[in-house]
Amino acid sequence: MGKKVCVVITARPSYSRIKTALKSIDEHPDLELQLVIAASALLDRYGSAVNFIEEDGFKIDERVYMVIEGSTLASAAKTTGIGIMELSTVFDNLRPDMVITIADRFETMSTAIAASYMNIPLVHIQGGEVTGNIDEKVRHAITKLSDLHLVSNEDAKNRLIRMGEHEETVFVTGCPSIDLVREVMESPNLDFDPCEKYGGVGSYINPNEDFMVVMQHPVTTEIDESRHQTEILIHEVAKMHVPVFWFWPNPDAGSDGTSNAIRTYREQNPNNKFRFFKNMEGRDFLRLLYASRCLVGNSSAGIRECSFMGVPVVNLGSRQNMRLRGPNVIDCGFQNNELSHALQSQFSHGLYEPAFLYGDGYAAQKIANLVATITPDFKKVISY
Amino acid sequence: MGKKVCVVITARPSYSRIKTALKSIDEHPDLELQLVIAASALLDRYGSAVNFIEEDGFKIDERVYMVIEGSTLASAAKTTGIGIMELSTVFDNLRPDMVITIADRFETMSTAIAASYMNIPLVHIQGGEVTGNIDEKVRHAITKLSDLHLVSNEDAKNRLIRMGEHEETVFVTGCPSIDLVREVMESPNLDFDPCEKYGGVGSYINPNEDFMVVMQHPVTTEIDESRHQTEILIHEVAKMHVPVFWFWPNPDAGSDGTSNAIRTYREQNPNNKFRFFKNMEGRDFLRLLYASRCLVGNSSAGIRECSFMGVPVVNLGSRQNMRLRGPNVIDCGFQNNELSHALQSQFSHGLYEPAFLYGDGYAAQKIANLVATITPDFKKVISY
Amino acid sequence: MGKKVCVVITARPSYSRIKTALKSIDEHPDLELQLVIAASALLDRYGSAVNFIEEDGFKIDERVYMVIEGSTLASAAKTTGIGIMELSTVFDNLRPDMVITIADRFETMSTAIAASYMNIPLVHIQGGEVTGNIDEKVRHAITKLSDLHLVSNEDAKNRLIRMGEHEETVFVTGCPSIDLVREVMESPNLDFDPCEKYGGVGSYINPNEDFMVVMQHPVTTEIDESRHQTEILIHEVAKMHVPVFWFWPNPDAGSDGTSNAIRTYREQNPNNKFRFFKNMEGRDFLRLLYASRCLVGNSSAGIRECSFMGVPVVNLGSRQNMRLRGPNVIDCGFQNNELSHALQSQFSHGLYEPAFLYGDGYAAQKIANLVATITPDFKKVISY
Amino acid sequence: MGKKVCVVITARPSYSRIKTALKSIDEHPDLELQLVIAASALLDRYGSAVNFIEEDGFKIDERVYMVIEGSTLASAAKTTGIGIMELSTVFDNLRPDMVITIADRFETMSTAIAASYMNIPLVHIQGGEVTGNIDEKVRHAITKLSDLHLVSNEDAKNRLIRMGEHEETVFVTGCPSIDLVREVMESPNLDFDPCEKYGGVGSYINPNEDFMVVMQHPVTTEIDESRHQTEILIHEVAKMHVPVFWFWPNPDAGSDGTSNAIRTYREQNPNNKFRFFKNMEGRDFLRLLYASRCLVGNSSAGIRECSFMGVPVVNLGSRQNMRLRGPNVIDCGFQNNELSHALQSQFSHGLYEPAFLYGDGYAAQKIANLVATITPDFKKVISY
Repeated sequence: MGKKVCVVITARPSYSRIKTALKSIDEHPDLELQLVIAASALLDRYGSAVNFIEEDGFKIDERVYMVIEGSTLASAAKTTGIGIMELSTVFDNLRPDMVITIADRFETMSTAIAASYMNIPLVHIQGGEVTGNIDEKVRHAITKLSDLHLVSNEDAKNRLIRMGEHEETVFVTGCPSIDLVREVMESPNLDFDPCEKYGGVGSYINPNEDFMVVMQHPVTTEIDESRHQTEILIHEVAKMHVPVFWFWPNPDAGSDGTSNAIRTYREQNPNNKFRFFKNMEGRDFLRLLYASRCLVGNSSAGIRECSFMGVPVVNLGSRQNMRLRGPNVIDCGFQNNELSHALQSQFSHGLYEPAFLYGDGYAAQKIANLVATITPDFKKVISY
Repeated sequence: MGKKVCVVITARPSYSRIKTALKSIDEHPDLELQLVIAASALLDRYGSAVNFIEEDGFKIDERVYMVIEGSTLASAAKTTGIGIMELSTVFDNLRPDMVITIADRFETMSTAIAASYMNIPLVHIQGGEVTGNIDEKVRHAITKLSDLHLVSNEDAKNRLIRMGEHEETVFVTGCPSIDLVREVMESPNLDFDPCEKYGGVGSYINPNEDFMVVMQHPVTTEIDESRHQTEILIHEVAKMHVPVFWFWPNPDAGSDGTSNAIRTYREQNPNNKFRFFKNMEGRDFLRLLYASRCLVGNSSAGIRECSFMGVPVVNLGSRQNMRLRGPNVIDCGFQNNELSHALQSQFSHGLYEPAFLYGDGYAAQKIANLVATITPDFKKVISY
Repeated sequence: MGKKVCVVITARPSYSRIKTALKSIDEHPDLELQLVIAASALLDRYGSAVNFIEEDGFKIDERVYMVIEGSTLASAAKTTGIGIMELSTVFDNLRPDMVITIADRFETMSTAIAASYMNIPLVHIQGGEVTGNIDEKVRHAITKLSDLHLVSNEDAKNRLIRMGEHEETVFVTGCPSIDLVREVMESPNLDFDPCEKYGGVGSYINPNEDFMVVMQHPVTTEIDESRHQTEILIHEVAKMHVPVFWFWPNPDAGSDGTSNAIRTYREQNPNNKFRFFKNMEGRDFLRLLYASRCLVGNSSAGIRECSFMGVPVVNLGSRQNMRLRGPNVIDCGFQNNELSHALQSQFSHGLYEPAFLYGDGYAAQKIANLVATITPDFKKVISY
Repeated sequence: MGKKVCVVITARPSYSRIKTALKSIDEHPDLELQLVIAASALLDRYGSAVNFIEEDGFKIDERVYMVIEGSTLASAAKTTGIGIMELSTVFDNLRPDMVITIADRFETMSTAIAASYMNIPLVHIQGGEVTGNIDEKVRHAITKLSDLHLVSNEDAKNRLIRMGEHEETVFVTGCPSIDLVREVMESPNLDFDPCEKYGGVGSYINPNEDFMVVMQHPVTTEIDESRHQTEILIHEVAKMHVPVFWFWPNPDAGSDGTSNAIRTYREQNPNNKFRFFKNMEGRDFLRLLYASRCLVGNSSAGIRECSFMGVPVVNLGSRQNMRLRGPNVIDCGFQNNELSHALQSQFSHGLYEPAFLYGDGYAAQKIANLVATITPDFKKVISY
């Protein structure tokens, strides 16, 4: 019986990020994976990540329904409170030797608090980065509750050490999401028809045409603007007169505004060239990005995965504000000309040189090995 | 209509610390105090701080029952989860312009998460200190969720800046608990009979005799030992054959062990010289300390208040491990000779020179003025 | 200052039922209305009843987000648990003299438990009826927690008395939903274009053509079948080749199945004659029913409102199983011929004679007067 | 693998009642017992029933901490809400074929709602009785959520049938608490020294002297009076100048008042003849009652167990108001003479004739057999 490593996954994009590491942990002879699927990862409205997880062959130990409906700021807080209550029961049942939490979504704080308050060593993946908005507060607060830090790059490592984490608890593994990119880049061509394989709603798009991909999430510190921002985005993208694959947003505060703007546009413009998806299997999504002329929006995929592949990105608004980024990214705001110029420039640019900012593509094995060999102590004092 | 400043008090000692600042905020012409009393501050078992608060003339806006009975680690987590649910409703009703949270008890995380997730600027009092144990994780995590930091000393300020907080958001005000000490030191003599005024249980103690005060809380990262540690402490203290005023512990995980050890001792030693109290009004408590030969245990009062007064302290175990301390403190562990020597040495020492490590006694006014003039932004990015 | 009467509304249809009574309470000189909007009544996905409520001029005292996403049976239970926690805080703040709860949706149990456990007299509207499924258990359990019963008809009154309620606590007022029907019947013609006024999605329907209305909710004791049942229903309705106004289901366990069946059908049959709505203002909805050839589905509107208007109804499945019904209703199951025959028969029948089974249309004033003159005692003992 | 029968025990007295049935279920070849210990049954303050349960050899499947501290009415409601959230997770994990809930304490509603909302057949033990106060509402509401009723006597059975329960779902088994009484009556003499065996606090009592037993719980609909009522009781009992074994109250709303009255009395009357216990093993408790001159207070043990043994009872106040009782009971209120006369009369009376009102002492086997042979349907409609 190996060391019991419990991973809590609360959202579709978190699963994409951690997937290869899950596999490595699951297959490691000294480790026993305990998998908890929670929050929006269980919900149909946000793409039922849980189904992909099961199709990928993982056994799910617990499911935790915790999302309070109603995308207000108070309900994000309440969701987190419920998550703590539920996860403390789950950890009591599973009795893991350590708990892994991923990145910085608001509800990951539930995992961090339940584990650290129960004296279970907490491992944080993707701490030490800088982005702005509520994610920023959550990420660094989780760092302070965590006992072992597995980070994407030296930049993040140095930041954690400056913040007072002990050097011997911080390891650069790279981000496991890049592992998948590396594998996909061995045969990166689009080998499926997205509309056929994933359904979705909207116009049929021929994948052999030149197309764009859009992925825009609400920004929790700007929720009042999320509807308006989405309207500007749709308008500018439509003006390009090219086919667009568009992904629905995460269930953060403000997502109702974003979703409504999309629905209204669709109803008023029945002849648009847009196709809407909730979700896509990770490899397929990467091949779609690689086949696209550019990615538009504020998804971290533009900063992380696309830098490895060299895909042009129009990064819109403040959400990825301060992340480390490669030459493939043009940042812009919602002033119309700015966005319009960026779209035209990136659409015609073609692939950039790859940049390995978030890992070399071998993070999963490093993570599994570290977790197998290190048993972090849950008692911790700042280093200065 | 002034700026609405909501203060959440979750425990008896937190009230003692913040009391003078509450008064200054309440009386400030540009501020409107909103007072929320929560968690153990409402409970009879832990001294009903709420009664003292009302007797002191404060109007209570909301009461939040949130403590799950059963002093396990999981119930500390659940209590925190419930606190988030309840406080997010409270903040929704009160709509404060900012929220103040105090120090580092586990359930203060409820205040910090509810406020920061709802985009309400969060002010943290007494961040930046170093102690060890779960308080350490909680304190620094709250720093990372906070937008304005009002700290006890330059040491704390420098630490926060090293941690990545922006210098313009960190102010040394001193700890408001020291304000009360300064006032009391103007006429510090014991002017009441503790047994008569506070009841309590146990033997009558003549306050004119030489006595000790004991205050020992369970350490959440060592809960299995809390009963045993308390037994050693009782045994060694009893060997001194002097009268002892003993305060019941906080409702942390482990407090059942501590309480049981005390109860068992009392039943087996009906003729002991111990008197047990739940609580005491702040000034009375300070005069009791000043009149004592020494304070024994792991209360932060030994490190903070007693340094200002010069009262000898035997600081026991790891709870105050790394706090900045004055010459009045002797640290020791549970090895019997060590404790026994420290008790004898401090009991016979007499007052030390005062040390102003945690403020000059004028924190309250500084806090009220800062809160009245600064409106922190809830959007925040690490400084490096 | 009148008697404080707190009404908790948790869903769109509950608002429609109680609306006229809310107005009478609000305008009564001896009563002060406290309005709490909770659960799906706040949510965009279920038609944001809250917006209609505000447009109707009511002041909302508290909003309670309590729905846990994920339409499983466990999440219905959890939603109810959260509702109790939230509503007990709400009642603590509002301090009502009595609380009114409506009918039998699962989450109304939150209102009933919070009020009765806090010794606040509880008034139940629409107790004593018989339907089958979980509503049946909830309705009678709420009866047992209630202190005053305002019912639709003599049949319900007699049942409550047989169940052990004291005769002097049971009053026949009629159902306030019928008040609106009575008013609308004074000028019942369709005076708006539904697609134009309410948007919705799907084909445009000319309201001057002969059309049907469909309203089918999942049955919580048959959730596994809800998708399949919806598929049969769509198929049979489509075979009629007539325009159809279709309303989305309530957020009960099973609603994902129903919604998915609808979505799949729409995508596979782009040329259908269906128009889908989330919600409609109450009077407009009644005029739409009156203008239709028949109502199909398992909504209680078919049993209650339609009996007063004489609109033909195909009542499908077990949901309204045992409700008192008029001659306008044909019951049928999911065997295809059965449903197909019922549809054809009712579509061609024309209006039936009205039946006043659920009130004479003057319930609101009776309710307000009773609540103003009676102060029920929260102590209660079964009558035998 | 037998049918999985989940029993949820939330308090010390509920365990005493159900204990023999637990054993019969556990030993039945066709049944698999799933045991959930929750609420005050886990708490040291209320006698840690959980320890007795383990000593009795039962395996505990889940522990559910759910009691919110602070004995207010709102916290009873919140405790119930938390219980629903926790138990729905527990039932999701354990997947029982049926759930058994006992009697009528407020928090048993958590069990009833979680099970019935999750479509798990619910078995209610001790429904159909009449008592008054909030227990009355809870008991009958649980009846309406239950699918199988195992009751104490024909009186209860007839009441359930009048309430609309189907005759074929109601069975008279007797109350399993009486099974223990029957066994103990085979050798009923006091074979231990209570002070020696159970510790407790207060004066030593020689069990060979004539003594009384007191057991008085707060009444939730009269919580403001609970302190005052306890004071009267102590005063009157003390006037008898006989030794008294006194049991601490249940953790209901109002218990702080009761406990405080007891504490104050003890401190002011150090030479009293009272001994205070938290708890006692069931057989020992019955032998103590049998050896006493009389039982005083409002415990149901006076009505139920004592009727079988013929022990004289002074039943005080409204808590057992309408329960079926034998000739051994004298009812009285808090008017001093009334209580004083009843105490004198019962103290000198000696044993009464036994009355078998709550069963013949063979309930456990009947319960196990019924549960093994009947699978109740969770769909239910009132019988008229």
